[in-house]
Amino acid sequence: MSAKRLTDLSQLCIHTITTKPWNIETAAKEFSAAGVKGITVWRDALEGRDVKKTGQLLRDEGLNTVSLCRGGFFPAKEKTKRDKAIDDNKRAIDTAAALGTQMVVLVCGAEPLQSLEDSRKQIQDGIEMIIPHATGAGIKLTIEPLHPMYADTRSAINTLAQANDMAEKINSPYVGIAVDVYHLWWDPSLEQEIKRCGKNGNLSAFHICDWSVPTIDLLLDRGLMGEGCIPVNKIRSWVEAAGFTGFYEVEIFSNKYWQTDQSQFLKKIIKAYQENS
Amino acid sequence: MSAKRLTDLSQLCIHTITTKPWNIETAAKEFSAAGVKGITVWRDALEGRDVKKTGQLLRDEGLNTVSLCRGGFFPAKEKTKRDKAIDDNKRAIDTAAALGTQMVVLVCGAEPLQSLEDSRKQIQDGIEMIIPHATGAGIKLTIEPLHPMYADTRSAINTLAQANDMAEKINSPYVGIAVDVYHLWWDPSLEQEIKRCGKNGNLSAFHICDWSVPTIDLLLDRGLMGEGCIPVNKIRSWVEAAGFTGFYEVEIFSNKYWQTDQSQFLKKIIKAYQENS
Repeated sequence: MSAKRLTDLSQLCIHTITTKPWNIETAAKEFSAAGVKGITVWRDALEGRDVKKTGQLLRDEGLNTVSLCRGGFFPAKEKTKRDKAIDDNKRAIDTAAALGTQMVVLVCGAEPLQSLEDSRKQIQDGIEMIIPHATGAGIKLTIEPLHPMYADTRSAINTLAQANDMAEKINSPYVGIAVDVYHLWWDPSLEQEIKRCGKNGNLSAFHICDWSVPTIDLLLDRGLMGEGCIPVNKIRSWVEAAGFTGFYEVEIFSNKYWQTDQSQFLKKIIKAYQENS
Repeated sequence: MSAKRLTDLSQLCIHTITTKPWNIETAAKEFSAAGVKGITVWRDALEGRDVKKTGQLLRDEGLNTVSLCRGGFFPAKEKTKRDKAIDDNKRAIDTAAALGTQMVVLVCGAEPLQSLEDSRKQIQDGIEMIIPHATGAGIKLTIEPLHPMYADTRSAINTLAQANDMAEKINSPYVGIAVDVYHLWWDPSLEQEIKRCGKNGNLSAFHICDWSVPTIDLLLDRGLMGEGCIPVNKIRSWVEAAGFTGFYEVEIFSNKYWQTDQSQFLKKIIKAYQENS
């Protein structure tokens, strides 16, 4: 099974962190000039800015603000810390609303000082506590299952099956799931879980990049689509078969690429999007 | 659920690679003097040695040679390479027999230039091709599922469920499974898959160490039990409940510890074994 070649950029979204050396104003201008149609904004990119004005600037550049990254990080041993996380997530929802996007991506968190079971329970509790706020603001909370190598501190949700279980239990139109090929490509049940995710109306976002061979850093060595071993096109075909029609979001953390000329990198992203996604 | 404290060293086995700066003769002497009862031998530790004599040396030190690490690495795009892997696995079986152990651990391999499905099929084919040789030598082939972060080049078998599926399909008394806490701790279905593994008679080995927080290297930054976030004691209780009565094998790759005095490190291993395993 393979997905149709992407001949235009109408579904291409790029995360601000992908071109981290650019500030959001430069990224917006450059993305727009290159024909990119979507942007996902990381919260650090908004620091020191008027969020509403920045949202307007993105719209003026013809960009669709696909989502805000990131809320989450719910688990903690102390209740005061968990309460702080709830407050922070409400702020993320408010920021998203001011920015003019309808989605906040959740990196759910994990607390190495307690069991994964406890962290998972606190994640579900945390999401349920912020749903009223998200509902009021019209923002979808998107659970992103993370690769098992991040189970120590970043997320206790490490497979799409777990994310599906949780989203189905919570059962709210304001909760969805992000499928990121980097985190999930290795999973033998991925195709079937993507089907299930789409069938239940929970497939809200699709993130792409590649797994470098070899990978030399646990966090900051992602590759461009086609540079590694992830079958991005095959996974896209599953996502499309599951009914997904949203943006394909390029999310790459790469010390290597951040050290290069970002205009050249943007050209490479577009080429990789059209030829290897 | 928690497992009984380990008050003696009767089930403690250490991998030669754990104390890599020591040659096998020094390791055997030091392990034995410290009261360790088992050793798992990595093939590199046997280089330039008479394997039978080395096996005798280990027995003379009162050590049980638990297994030989490692065979596997079956997948490849070219048939000639796959044939070479078969030959190498047969040699590993012969080495194990000469050494006087009854188990070869398989790091099954993965080929980033082809799909995981293809690699998985080649793994199963490869194991089936060497079973007659293993049977003749009385050697058990032990499939070790590896952490998903090694799915690019080291193993396409990344969960205990997959290893269980494969061992059950192959259905040979000469095929078993190694449960390594480092690779499997994050899996929400771990307890249930350990039960299944024991019930079907496939639970052949148990490897312990810890996941350092943070982990700074994908391969060589494992921690001592108790230093990280893996619930080693809880997982041991599951393994014991599943009927496992073999050795608890300490397998640590650590640039940090390899740079320290290995006698001191051995003391730390024994302390961590008794206090945090």
